[in-house]
Amino acid sequence: MDYEFYMQLALKNAQAMKGQTDPNPIVGSVIVNHNRIVGVGAHLKAGEPHAEIHALRMAGEEAEGGTIYVTLEPCSHQGRTGPCAVAIVEAGIKKVVIATLDPNPVVAGNGVKILEEAGIEVVIGICEEESRKMNEVFNKFIVEKKPFITLKSGITLDGKIATHKNSSKWITSAEAREDVHQLRSENMGILVGVNTVIHDDPELTSRIPNGRNPIRIVLDSTLKIPLESRVIQDKQAETWIFTSESHDREKRKTLEAMGISVFKTGGSKTVDPKQVVQILGEKLVSSVLIEGGGSINAAFLENKLIDKAVLYIAPKLVGGQQAPTFLEGTGIENMSDAVELSDVTVTPVGRDFKFVGYPVY
Amino acid sequence: MDYEFYMQLALKNAQAMKGQTDPNPIVGSVIVNHNRIVGVGAHLKAGEPHAEIHALRMAGEEAEGGTIYVTLEPCSHQGRTGPCAVAIVEAGIKKVVIATLDPNPVVAGNGVKILEEAGIEVVIGICEEESRKMNEVFNKFIVEKKPFITLKSGITLDGKIATHKNSSKWITSAEAREDVHQLRSENMGILVGVNTVIHDDPELTSRIPNGRNPIRIVLDSTLKIPLESRVIQDKQAETWIFTSESHDREKRKTLEAMGISVFKTGGSKTVDPKQVVQILGEKLVSSVLIEGGGSINAAFLENKLIDKAVLYIAPKLVGGQQAPTFLEGTGIENMSDAVELSDVTVTPVGRDFKFVGYPVY
Repeated sequence: MDYEFYMQLALKNAQAMKGQTDPNPIVGSVIVNHNRIVGVGAHLKAGEPHAEIHALRMAGEEAEGGTIYVTLEPCSHQGRTGPCAVAIVEAGIKKVVIATLDPNPVVAGNGVKILEEAGIEVVIGICEEESRKMNEVFNKFIVEKKPFITLKSGITLDGKIATHKNSSKWITSAEAREDVHQLRSENMGILVGVNTVIHDDPELTSRIPNGRNPIRIVLDSTLKIPLESRVIQDKQAETWIFTSESHDREKRKTLEAMGISVFKTGGSKTVDPKQVVQILGEKLVSSVLIEGGGSINAAFLENKLIDKAVLYIAPKLVGGQQAPTFLEGTGIENMSDAVELSDVTVTPVGRDFKFVGYPVY
Repeated sequence: MDYEFYMQLALKNAQAMKGQTDPNPIVGSVIVNHNRIVGVGAHLKAGEPHAEIHALRMAGEEAEGGTIYVTLEPCSHQGRTGPCAVAIVEAGIKKVVIATLDPNPVVAGNGVKILEEAGIEVVIGICEEESRKMNEVFNKFIVEKKPFITLKSGITLDGKIATHKNSSKWITSAEAREDVHQLRSENMGILVGVNTVIHDDPELTSRIPNGRNPIRIVLDSTLKIPLESRVIQDKQAETWIFTSESHDREKRKTLEAMGISVFKTGGSKTVDPKQVVQILGEKLVSSVLIEGGGSINAAFLENKLIDKAVLYIAPKLVGGQQAPTFLEGTGIENMSDAVELSDVTVTPVGRDFKFVGYPVY
């Protein structure tokens, strides 16, 4: 009961940092002594102190004999800020309450080991599910070294992303579009196909308070992207283009001279989504939001690369056998082989409905 | 407060009769005297007494000086069961509490007039919205003499009703399919295209307790329906076929000899949905559930004939540019002209989500 009260405060502090700690997880911490909160902390930015260190500094001498709550297992390795487990022992903490163990193979229980060997009581699993979910990106990236990929689309109730005349403004409500800016801000990269750039000339930025602009990632097999596009010209965020073997060599030089990064994947005619993900992981991009058309979305789903789907369904109908849907490609043959989503939630956003689920392959 | 307590009981009694009173509305009634319930009633079947008459009979002499609650304005016309307003006056009722006025132009306030002229106190509008909604079918039919049309579809989250190989078993969960049987039972007719009959050979019956089988309505412009189809052979319910000018005359004779009703609409090559609706109205079919494919659904929507949409969305993805969606046809050109749905509700049904809304044309 008390455990949950303090852990909830630690979780709230962690959640407030969402989007500003990448590639590190968000973590919060609270120190309690003699029934009083004597320190709170959160990890603010990669390279800066971990949550426990901030909380210990705030508590000062009052940490001694106290209980520390932390949403993620204290680290055991000498990174840029030293092992937190050792700092906790040295501060004289008597009890450590942990929401979830660190999936980072370098830690993974070693933090707890240090604490227990020092005679400290350790309680694990308080608000575990909540803590795990808020770091779903980190949990994947730290183990697989590949970005956590979210597919986002705004669709009509009949599954369309535009009419048969390619009219698409606006499918969803202003509230849903604002929610998308939040999603963008929480992702390190935002990925679209070159046709989206050609048709819509979007900025692909996050227009919210405390938001950050993700890297704009464009899949363009031949480098046909117009040089006057906003993503090339506006310098509001980095733009990375992934292309194939059959790209225009001269255009590549021009783009690179303009400060655009161009990456070639092995596909001879098309960009290979698996290689895109591999390269993004190597570049430490831990999260990507896909806002593609039906072909790009399908290519990533068929390659089992989508970790999460976020769909804003507008309660309207457009019809049209030729109207595009958000998931095209060849598609699955048998209904019994459809990709199911788990942990589905539906929330009203303005007059629309936000579906969130996790594909199970 | 008390008004609502008794009106809720009247509503519950009415709702239990859903599907068994067509083309009449569902109506419930409660009589209270000296703080005791002395009678309850409901309209059970067209041609039988109205709810108020049953309640008055149960109350007997105890109706005198009492208050009657009724979910719909008491009738003023001499139908098969006499004007209820007159019966209420004659029974010595002192107060009448009504949820909603009768939209039937023959009544529409005349019942209240009879009561008030007899010196009875009348209260109108208790649980009005609830009462109006439970008779949405009747409210349309009694005014327009055309059926209330519900479009039903079971779709994947990407809007598909089958894979590109036409595999469709099963999109939705057992719970959602059972809910469809309830919907079928509540409608007088169930409408499909002949291609559904050819591909799936469905029974189109309602398999639930106290369910009734709707009339099976098939749109078939040439009469290519196979004679061995279940809807032709099984005699579980009536089957009506709507065809066009270009139908097979010999096949029509064969079908009619087998007890199947065949109606010709004016369309030379295709069945005209407006005429189908007109004819069904003339035949006193007050409600129709459309379980068509994308073309039939679109034809009815484009003609503004859909009153209500019920969509079961399964949290799964199949993709496929060629995979059929539940709404095809040509479709709307501009997104800003999309058909919006009003009063949208989303309810979990098994692992699926049931969207209900009303198209606004």
